[in-house]
Amino acid sequence: MMSLGDDREVLREAPVGVFDSGVGGLTVVREIMRQIPNEKIIYFGDTARVPYGSKSKETITRYSRQIVRFLREQKVKAIVAACNTASAYALSEIEKEIDIPIIGVVKPGAKVAAEVTRNGRVGVIGTEGTVGSRIYSTYIKEIKPEIQVLGKACPLFVPLAEEGLWQDPVTDEIAKRYLSELIESDIDTLILGCTHYPLIRSTLGRIMGEKVTLVNPAYETARELRELLEQEQLLNRKKQELGMNCHRFYVSDMADKFQSFANSILKYGILSAKKIDIENY
Amino acid sequence: MMSLGDDREVLREAPVGVFDSGVGGLTVVREIMRQIPNEKIIYFGDTARVPYGSKSKETITRYSRQIVRFLREQKVKAIVAACNTASAYALSEIEKEIDIPIIGVVKPGAKVAAEVTRNGRVGVIGTEGTVGSRIYSTYIKEIKPEIQVLGKACPLFVPLAEEGLWQDPVTDEIAKRYLSELIESDIDTLILGCTHYPLIRSTLGRIMGEKVTLVNPAYETARELRELLEQEQLLNRKKQELGMNCHRFYVSDMADKFQSFANSILKYGILSAKKIDIENY
Repeated sequence: MMSLGDDREVLREAPVGVFDSGVGGLTVVREIMRQIPNEKIIYFGDTARVPYGSKSKETITRYSRQIVRFLREQKVKAIVAACNTASAYALSEIEKEIDIPIIGVVKPGAKVAAEVTRNGRVGVIGTEGTVGSRIYSTYIKEIKPEIQVLGKACPLFVPLAEEGLWQDPVTDEIAKRYLSELIESDIDTLILGCTHYPLIRSTLGRIMGEKVTLVNPAYETARELRELLEQEQLLNRKKQELGMNCHRFYVSDMADKFQSFANSILKYGILSAKKIDIENY
Repeated sequence: MMSLGDDREVLREAPVGVFDSGVGGLTVVREIMRQIPNEKIIYFGDTARVPYGSKSKETITRYSRQIVRFLREQKVKAIVAACNTASAYALSEIEKEIDIPIIGVVKPGAKVAAEVTRNGRVGVIGTEGTVGSRIYSTYIKEIKPEIQVLGKACPLFVPLAEEGLWQDPVTDEIAKRYLSELIESDIDTLILGCTHYPLIRSTLGRIMGEKVTLVNPAYETARELRELLEQEQLLNRKKQELGMNCHRFYVSDMADKFQSFANSILKYGILSAKKIDIENY
């Protein structure tokens, strides 16, 4: 017979579930691997239904519910919605429906932005869905109501990042256009409100100038995940062996393409990505 | 009691079903409206699951089957797959499964390209799915095996067109990169193998130069639809009243956004687009 203590130990070694509409969430995975390397990760990328940023709240909530059902079947101990659109649209409903911790990328990013701004002017860039939801503004104003939050949707950044144009005159030109309003508005803090954006971080930093602090919610989310697991006594104390054998990657389509993109983002190659039929969940 | 003749008359007045992954198929609708203005159109744009171009054959075939079931429920007399990826991946299977005529955009485009090339070198631009399938090459070589077909996937053209950058230095720059190989290959004919591309036709024409003939499958498809309906005695002889009341537009998500994009492509405003749950079909 197992004691309660044993159960907790088993639970500690359970994996963390991470999901995104596609490959963008891998920037969050990268941060989790850096900050809490003992944790096993089960990743799901919804590559059949990407992008989420231009879809409705109703649709994104339905998709997120299916993914959460899939991840729970994999016996994860906690879930990270590593997608700004899913965090903005679906998280508040889903956290009421499940009994394991779930965090998104929005709250951690909002918290840090509220802390670091000095002039009280924060910019947010993201998909149409994320920016239109005004979710960063809601969270930031809960912390400091006097902060002004300016949003700008940047729909071309995701396809440019996925085409690999991370440092390219075209990405520069598009970024200059998207960011000009924010620069004129004299913000001192810019939230990268889409998990793809860390890939073009150096372009964004150069254009915004060194007086503007870039907030990367991927980094803040990994930190918050660590705190949450510590607090719930769920941090895995067993050291992982080197290599990626302990992590598992699932997608809803195009596993090969996902795998090669993942290999360009993560430090070491993933063994394989497996395709599942998410619409059955 | 209705005679067989009456039945045929009723069938003639039935609408034509047209579908695409999103808004691109509206360039085909525009051509059908120009060339056979008496026909009523029922359009379905799969805006919840767009884009199709980066998804697998299996997924696209499943999506297309669901859409065909929906359109049949609307009592259409014929179906146009106004999407190159769906035409490339799903058409040959679906045409075996249904008893009304269905045509795609690939065959009509391939036929004209085979006719107009003088030096036997034809280029095809499209999504990864369409280009990877080599479907244009297959059809062209059935007509003239000696023709050389060169394909080039252009993944950024769809997001650029959807952002409205139809004439823009960024679209110019991206087009120059994508098309340089084809220009060096000395093609004299270029197939716009994605229904979004007619929107950036003037950019493509300028970069390819006037010696290269651009083939727009949307135009050729409307012509083939006319011939098919004539041949099957299904052409609607009853003149439509002015305005768009006789056409109906359905989408799987974001009806408002679709509507405003449609209004920038079609001659007169569509009354409304209705959202349906395509995954139930």
